[in-house]
Amino acid sequence: MPHGYNGKILRVDLSNKTTTVETPSETVYRRYMGGSALSLYFLLKEQKAGVDPLGPDNKLVFMSNVTSGVPMPGLTRYTIAARSPLTGAFGEAEAGGFWGPELKLSGFDGIIIEGCSPDPVYLWIKDGEAEIRDAANLWGKDTGEVQQLIRDELGDKRIRVAQCGQAGENLVPYACVVNELKHVNGRTGMGAVMGSKNLRAIAVRGTGEVSVADPEKMKEIRKEAVDRIPKSPLGYTLKKIGTPVFVMGLQNSGILPTKNFQVGRFDGAEAISGENLEETLLEAPKGCYACPIMCKRTVRVEGKYGATPEYGGPEYETLASLGSVCCIDNLEAICHGNELCNRWGLDTISTGVSIAFAMECMERGILTENDTDKIDLRFGNADGMLEMIRKIAFREGFGDILADGVKRASQKIGKGSEEWAMHIKGLEMALHDPRGKTGVGLGFAVSPTGADHIEAPHDTSFAAEGVMLDAMKPLGLTEPMSPTDLGPKKVCQFAHTQQIFSFNNSLGICNFSAVPYSAYTLPLIVDTVAAVTGWDTSLYEIMELGERAITMARMFNVREGLSNKDDYLPDRLFEPLDEGTEEEKQINKKEFAEALRLYYEAMGWDSKTGVPTDGRLAYLGLEWLISQK
Amino acid sequence: MPHGYNGKILRVDLSNKTTTVETPSETVYRRYMGGSALSLYFLLKEQKAGVDPLGPDNKLVFMSNVTSGVPMPGLTRYTIAARSPLTGAFGEAEAGGFWGPELKLSGFDGIIIEGCSPDPVYLWIKDGEAEIRDAANLWGKDTGEVQQLIRDELGDKRIRVAQCGQAGENLVPYACVVNELKHVNGRTGMGAVMGSKNLRAIAVRGTGEVSVADPEKMKEIRKEAVDRIPKSPLGYTLKKIGTPVFVMGLQNSGILPTKNFQVGRFDGAEAISGENLEETLLEAPKGCYACPIMCKRTVRVEGKYGATPEYGGPEYETLASLGSVCCIDNLEAICHGNELCNRWGLDTISTGVSIAFAMECMERGILTENDTDKIDLRFGNADGMLEMIRKIAFREGFGDILADGVKRASQKIGKGSEEWAMHIKGLEMALHDPRGKTGVGLGFAVSPTGADHIEAPHDTSFAAEGVMLDAMKPLGLTEPMSPTDLGPKKVCQFAHTQQIFSFNNSLGICNFSAVPYSAYTLPLIVDTVAAVTGWDTSLYEIMELGERAITMARMFNVREGLSNKDDYLPDRLFEPLDEGTEEEKQINKKEFAEALRLYYEAMGWDSKTGVPTDGRLAYLGLEWLISQK
Repeated sequence: MPHGYNGKILRVDLSNKTTTVETPSETVYRRYMGGSALSLYFLLKEQKAGVDPLGPDNKLVFMSNVTSGVPMPGLTRYTIAARSPLTGAFGEAEAGGFWGPELKLSGFDGIIIEGCSPDPVYLWIKDGEAEIRDAANLWGKDTGEVQQLIRDELGDKRIRVAQCGQAGENLVPYACVVNELKHVNGRTGMGAVMGSKNLRAIAVRGTGEVSVADPEKMKEIRKEAVDRIPKSPLGYTLKKIGTPVFVMGLQNSGILPTKNFQVGRFDGAEAISGENLEETLLEAPKGCYACPIMCKRTVRVEGKYGATPEYGGPEYETLASLGSVCCIDNLEAICHGNELCNRWGLDTISTGVSIAFAMECMERGILTENDTDKIDLRFGNADGMLEMIRKIAFREGFGDILADGVKRASQKIGKGSEEWAMHIKGLEMALHDPRGKTGVGLGFAVSPTGADHIEAPHDTSFAAEGVMLDAMKPLGLTEPMSPTDLGPKKVCQFAHTQQIFSFNNSLGICNFSAVPYSAYTLPLIVDTVAAVTGWDTSLYEIMELGERAITMARMFNVREGLSNKDDYLPDRLFEPLDEGTEEEKQINKKEFAEALRLYYEAMGWDSKTGVPTDGRLAYLGLEWLISQK
Repeated sequence: MPHGYNGKILRVDLSNKTTTVETPSETVYRRYMGGSALSLYFLLKEQKAGVDPLGPDNKLVFMSNVTSGVPMPGLTRYTIAARSPLTGAFGEAEAGGFWGPELKLSGFDGIIIEGCSPDPVYLWIKDGEAEIRDAANLWGKDTGEVQQLIRDELGDKRIRVAQCGQAGENLVPYACVVNELKHVNGRTGMGAVMGSKNLRAIAVRGTGEVSVADPEKMKEIRKEAVDRIPKSPLGYTLKKIGTPVFVMGLQNSGILPTKNFQVGRFDGAEAISGENLEETLLEAPKGCYACPIMCKRTVRVEGKYGATPEYGGPEYETLASLGSVCCIDNLEAICHGNELCNRWGLDTISTGVSIAFAMECMERGILTENDTDKIDLRFGNADGMLEMIRKIAFREGFGDILADGVKRASQKIGKGSEEWAMHIKGLEMALHDPRGKTGVGLGFAVSPTGADHIEAPHDTSFAAEGVMLDAMKPLGLTEPMSPTDLGPKKVCQFAHTQQIFSFNNSLGICNFSAVPYSAYTLPLIVDTVAAVTGWDTSLYEIMELGERAITMARMFNVREGLSNKDDYLPDRLFEPLDEGTEEEKQINKKEFAEALRLYYEAMGWDSKTGVPTDGRLAYLGLEWLISQK
């Protein structure tokens, strides 16, 4: 299959309001492919360490990948990456929907945003052309209004808009980027970076086609992927209930984060469950480009907690972050809170966990209503939670403190509150309790972005189940593994699985469509890359891509001064969960430290500092990074 | 393809003259597969460090692999492994021919020989049954006679015999094992280990079939492999001239080891070339089981330097070891010497390099004819060389000194002769000069068995050529590489290629049929393993098998007290080759040390000691070796 891969990168200099088009070599595309790895390639090559995350020197990369735009389920994600204003470390966030493929069909694999516009602008890209346009009339407006104004101005209803909201304008360091009002690059504050550049939105329209080296093969692959969906337990479940199905799954396992991670079961779990959502507020299942699973939900709520379908509906993470972790069992209020976050551009995870932190502070008497602008922030108060969302987005009163995230807020509040600030590297915990799935614990601790569920294998216990065990067999991992194991065999399984999660982030593969959960098999992923690009690739090359991206992100953080000291879990997670019950779960601190050491060594990193060795950098084709240590 | 892999291991206790049959789990077969890795599994699990290589506690393993016995070109090799009496380190040697597949067809994947028989015996295996038989009448006889006597005694001309010769009986530490008189497990003295156990031969006959999970797929694969042979430059050349073709290839590159590695060109190269052999002494091309390449040669020589086809003919290594490295340009004498080695069971490489060492000592006046039983051992003296072969095999006079290999001989001779003893870890240099191919230099230095061409990628410059560059692309290695480069990019390419060479040794794949040289592609190897076993394997799993075997061998050596100090090249190889000419080639010592460090780190080994880290052991599923450090 001879087929030179050609992809274009749009470079936008906002300070000078110029755009240029670059064509990296095929070797660059083959080595980094897209998303996480290709973003890191540009950031590490072009950006020096120590830039102000909210200053003009922080580059902001939007990156799809070599397979994006091909009509295949689960290939829709794109990455936004920059130095994170929340953590000071590598920041990245993925989102699905239609924006990523649209960018690709418009002729670009990615966009590198540089500098800072003196006044509000948005970027308009259509079929290989790019224009920086005035956004004075968009500034300060809700995302829904902005999307409508842009579509009206440009006269095309099919334009896809990715944007920060007012939270991004207000430099909330966990402001997200929203595309089409409901697909979210959530974590690490990429919306704040947009806001800092006075870039409110990127509007994209592509009418082109993606060139496929072997269209016949591609047709076969698509057929196989679509056929497999109903046969995979997760694909089937996600089609039926969406990600909200996890609420009861985790509740039943006793690891549904509740009461700011103090307990693993929530009395109101059934009320906020996917099953209840399905029966009561669901408007329709919605999905991403070319995907028949449609795991996302739109909801309609009338009255006080109004929610409209255009802003989507809560996914699992949001049901837990605005629900169980705050002990809120009012599903309508959660749906409304979800809409507010999408309307104003806030990451629902960081938002909910920040509010849960404040709630614990109030329950413990560290905060009173005098500190919180008279808002009752005890666990379970839905109205208090909703009011705090607004105050965070607009940095009003106590919201201005919570807007900086739990790490900085707890430092400001003091009085021992740091102990209840559930974050890693400054990123609020995604809603997964490592005490019931140690792989997630390792993943959270070593993730370059902090406690990020998109960087960490969700649950390495999958191997205990038939289909999921089969999915891992091409790697030679044939043995089941307990979810609470933390020994060398778990480290082995974790380090392999982490590479899968990593290449997913470089190839735009949705974790729910991917190994080990659903429609994709590892060979099918390899075949997809081969069919689209014409490259004679292999699972070896794709796994190495995963390791390469992990190692590049590690190097990004090493340059920013992070070290092994930043790979930790909050102390609370070493306390027993459900203490005294039959199901008590606990992570042994010494075992965890030992697992971390084994992980460093497994990755070819220094066993003490966790810094990638020169030799492993060379092995991964990253010899150019040796001098950057 | 559901297909549980079942393989049997024959365990032979020579001390008690009992045999038992074991069936390792499918997990063991999948993780280690055969050859090198599976031998190491048993040695590391069962044998403590520090055993006398020639004592009863040294286990001797004969190992085929999961694909052996399938009628496919290039899948015929089997491994013999034990602690080496020559190096004290891991000993292993591979051989082709028909014996390995015959063993598999007899119902066994491998044989573990333990203890020591009080009297000469041989082992007779047929269709799942094994018998230890008296070999009093075989002891002291030439290999040809022994093979005939066994076939006569058992009444079956089709019996395949692997045996040590008198050199093995005499415990020459570089005695080889010969099967069918011309296929040789050459290096590291496995014949001496046989001799030490009073085990003269293993006779095998199998009339069974190997079960293939997907026979249709296997048929396709075979067709593709056979089709590819004439299209691959090396396959074509090997079919036409055999491995002797390398004589002129290396001569033309100025790296044909000559005069004990003092120079890289030999005036007599054409006389000992494959082309000349083809025109003069060739009887017929001969090959291995199911292979149409037939890269081996039989020769017929009448008169003083008589040679008969039954003992085969010299391959490249022998043409150089008994030829150029001793400055001998008499092709008939080399053919005769080759026959003597196969008749008495001597590794032609160690034999020739030992004689070349003695020749240099004599040329430099360190040795005189008084030391060498009046034999003129000046460079170029064919009769002296031939006489020394006899004296080495039978440990006569000066032969008793050279029989111990150049390392010990030079220590005995002293007077600075250690400088001309061309060995690594005690194993005489295979006939490849690292000054013209740095990958071989790295390979020789880190090979667990010493300067062994079967452990070291022959020439990582292959990437400069079209077909060979294509062969490596599935690993993402797409860029050409100079054969004399020694920087981080070479280390990257070397470490990847070494894993290919390593899994070849575990899967019985002939290097000449394999990547990057000839008929096999990397995907074809994966498909072969999958088709035979029914395993849903991948190139990732197979590459990891390669890394696993390298790491296990490293651990074997760590247990035996070897360290980074044993990873070196002889000083001579840091001197310029062809000094003062336009083609001068030199390895920079500091660059080489730096490349070694990068290699250790690339492998996840300690960057100073070269000891595999706990974490990388865990990653490779070798957590059980952590406690053995």
